[in-house]
Amino acid sequence: MWYLFDGPIEGYMVKRISIRTSGLGLHEITGDVQSVVREAGGREGLCTILIQHTSASLTVQENADPSARRDLERWLDRLVPEDDPDFTHTLEGADDMPAHIKAALTATTLSIPVADGRLALGTWQGIYVWEHRRRGGTRNCVIHVGN
Amino acid sequence: MWYLFDGPIEGYMVKRISIRTSGLGLHEITGDVQSVVREAGGREGLCTILIQHTSASLTVQENADPSARRDLERWLDRLVPEDDPDFTHTLEGADDMPAHIKAALTATTLSIPVADGRLALGTWQGIYVWEHRRRGGTRNCVIHVGN
Amino acid sequence: MWYLFDGPIEGYMVKRISIRTSGLGLHEITGDVQSVVREAGGREGLCTILIQHTSASLTVQENADPSARRDLERWLDRLVPEDDPDFTHTLEGADDMPAHIKAALTATTLSIPVADGRLALGTWQGIYVWEHRRRGGTRNCVIHVGN
Repeated sequence: MWYLFDGPIEGYMVKRISIRTSGLGLHEITGDVQSVVREAGGREGLCTILIQHTSASLTVQENADPSARRDLERWLDRLVPEDDPDFTHTLEGADDMPAHIKAALTATTLSIPVADGRLALGTWQGIYVWEHRRRGGTRNCVIHVGN
Repeated sequence: MWYLFDGPIEGYMVKRISIRTSGLGLHEITGDVQSVVREAGGREGLCTILIQHTSASLTVQENADPSARRDLERWLDRLVPEDDPDFTHTLEGADDMPAHIKAALTATTLSIPVADGRLALGTWQGIYVWEHRRRGGTRNCVIHVGN
Repeated sequence: MWYLFDGPIEGYMVKRISIRTSGLGLHEITGDVQSVVREAGGREGLCTILIQHTSASLTVQENADPSARRDLERWLDRLVPEDDPDFTHTLEGADDMPAHIKAALTATTLSIPVADGRLALGTWQGIYVWEHRRRGGTRNCVIHVGN
């Protein structure tokens, strides 16, 4: 983890966290984000997450039944198949252009209110990094916590 | 309505509002959100909305001609039909998995600048809760207003 | 450019910028947004962008190889073709309803953390206005910079 800003003011922080994704799919980061909120120390505020990549994205999805996430992934894979004859941006692999499209259709930034020192998510909501490249890799997210 | 934080500082607030959706489709909440901004009391700032569900979502859409919203809904219904043979997450009903997918393709959080005490939306923009379940229900949104 | 708020507090600003889009496609605004962040003057914070239209949108995409952006545009054009027989909102032209749908599938607001006085984007990320109307036009974005 790399601190961009760990100021003297309670409740403020800008921090970069790195996520290792082993491959395609949804990787939960709710706990990592909550840790940064706790470290920032404020009771109420706003937590914003930016993923610094264009072939992976963010989403808030159901954290209970994993079948919902599997069906979601499969549906999006079917909507944006590899080897589309119209693709010209193919130098970085057959999964690269679908990855950019999937990222554009989902979220690059999310802003979650903080209440009582915790992310004010719904009971069944989790925050996920959605890896769209087959090989995965290290994905950086910048987290801002403010009032 | 349930207050998470109604602090002593002008222009700050974290508040949860509940929306009753009678069924599928776009339910305008611009006025509800504007009320929270007014209550927070600041002239300039940022208003963030999180919907605490994964089978309903948020969108900013045209508030004038309702035919635009109807066509939008119908188009998305066609893109994500029920009874997809690949769905395995079907225990909560045929409309549940399409609801999760539609939520992932639209927005879970929105951040709207505030100027002169009002949401700085375009003339034809409204904020909507997009209900993706047939039966609808009570949908909670957490609204953060800050500087 | 029109100032909504240029307050006395360093690091705070609400400003509206206008982008001329000559037609369909992705128009980079990273430099314009960075200029507002510089003008606001803070070292760390959060920058939020709202596009005040429902037939154009925002996206963060690869700023290197333009073929990625071209393939992305073509793919979305194919997903949301004009002259869909189900469209009823056709008074403003054949490209209007696809524009609303494309806007709903991408982003209306983006929030980017600021660190060391700069947008904390990834190396290959750029911020784009995505024009979905053939004729293009003047597109207004409201930019909020705060702590």
